[in-house]
Amino acid sequence: MNPSPVRLRVAFQGEPGAFSEEAAVKLLGAQIETVPRLTFEAMFAAIADGAADLILAPVENSLAGSVYRCYDLLLESKLSIIAEVILPIAHNLIGPPGATIDQVRFVQSHPVALAQCTRFFEAHPQITRVAAEDTGGSVREVVRAGDHQRAAIASRRAAEIYAGCILQSHLEDHRQNYTRFVLLSPEPGVPAGANKISLVVFLWHQPGALHQALEPIAREKINLVKIESRPIVGHPFEYCFYLDLMAPPQAPGAQAALEELRRRAREVRILGCYVAAPPPTSS
Amino acid sequence: MNPSPVRLRVAFQGEPGAFSEEAAVKLLGAQIETVPRLTFEAMFAAIADGAADLILAPVENSLAGSVYRCYDLLLESKLSIIAEVILPIAHNLIGPPGATIDQVRFVQSHPVALAQCTRFFEAHPQITRVAAEDTGGSVREVVRAGDHQRAAIASRRAAEIYAGCILQSHLEDHRQNYTRFVLLSPEPGVPAGANKISLVVFLWHQPGALHQALEPIAREKINLVKIESRPIVGHPFEYCFYLDLMAPPQAPGAQAALEELRRRAREVRILGCYVAAPPPTSS
Repeated sequence: MNPSPVRLRVAFQGEPGAFSEEAAVKLLGAQIETVPRLTFEAMFAAIADGAADLILAPVENSLAGSVYRCYDLLLESKLSIIAEVILPIAHNLIGPPGATIDQVRFVQSHPVALAQCTRFFEAHPQITRVAAEDTGGSVREVVRAGDHQRAAIASRRAAEIYAGCILQSHLEDHRQNYTRFVLLSPEPGVPAGANKISLVVFLWHQPGALHQALEPIAREKINLVKIESRPIVGHPFEYCFYLDLMAPPQAPGAQAALEELRRRAREVRILGCYVAAPPPTSS
Repeated sequence: MNPSPVRLRVAFQGEPGAFSEEAAVKLLGAQIETVPRLTFEAMFAAIADGAADLILAPVENSLAGSVYRCYDLLLESKLSIIAEVILPIAHNLIGPPGATIDQVRFVQSHPVALAQCTRFFEAHPQITRVAAEDTGGSVREVVRAGDHQRAAIASRRAAEIYAGCILQSHLEDHRQNYTRFVLLSPEPGVPAGANKISLVVFLWHQPGALHQALEPIAREKINLVKIESRPIVGHPFEYCFYLDLMAPPQAPGAQAALEELRRRAREVRILGCYVAAPPPTSS
């Protein structure tokens, strides 16, 4: 007997308790089934493998930049963006039940997480940093060990999953640390209330090509909220451009701008139409 | 007695043997003194601290994307870009002298490096991955331990520095993995032969602003080889744009375009003029 036959299965990159999993739950609710995958490649294969219905892929971090690899895999796939979510990256010190922060001598996590908490380590010189492959997996290990000298740095969700205790929250140096994720579906439908369009434009290789391509967007007074050029692999000096436009996809202005853009570009690919996430607030 | 009073001191982020150090030597030659710094913040402080003359900062990786944190620190600083270098990221399996690859059972490195060598680990299921804080530091440790069962993944330079042996080269999954670095100086001079201009443009917040800003660049037939929008911290929905233009900075067309751009923008800041690096070739 299957107790919940309609649970939506969402693949993410990382181990249980990863920030990506926290983002999936923030966007879709705690009733979803999250499907962990070790690599971006395995995550993008999860729908074809029959293991997942949707994929939640990180595309941009406010400190580290765009996640090019996910953009490349999205372009190679036939998936569409149907939603986005922005997650503040808040690091927590998590120990086994019963531990207190003054007992801790060793803190393990992914080196990127350790590097984002330098002020915490400066303030606690008695603590040794220990590198690990994963934030969530580190919590699993320190809780299982039950040693009050050992703690991990990870998401709040990792503490919940592995029954760890948050000894201190907001260890991160920068509160302006957030990651934008997109939800990918094999069905290209446009959700109700969609007000944002993501697309990629391939232009002819000549000076002024981008300026000409942006003209119809400017003429229709459409707000361009992201633009990023990417070299095209195997074609030195050729570029494509990722654009995010704020516009309801069915509005006549957006339709006209996209139609004109198609005439001016070598190729235009709509990556998806969706409801824009509210701008991040420091939590 | 100081044996080499005129050695140029170049700060980089990482431990000795990091890819950033390899890039500094590739750009400036083996006679420089490289100054390791643990964080980007400490690296950017190294000139003011009197520890370095120049800084080599990574700004973009072909798989991972732009390094926003370095762009932010560059904007906060008064430094100028005076050169760039593109380094193919080639991962090597490095063991202690005398070791052979079939003895290896544990391979340690930074998790990002481990994640870029998934095919190697799939082909060698007898090898366990071990996370560490640093690529170069991993080589130091395995060479010091002298255990033939242990090896590290790092740059060729790390093998040279720590007298390790390269047991296998090109472990990386993707040959198209390269990082672009910029050399930063407190002196804003324009090097002879400069043909590239990096700048950041702050625009008034209105639809079409970017299109209008690009018009003088298109009119002068200047090739735009990179464009990237960034949200302005603390100003939701406001953006600045990073542009790389291919143009000799003294050419009349470039001067005219920049002058007109200044009239159309809220602010234009030239980050530097320098000689463009040749496009990467897979090594």
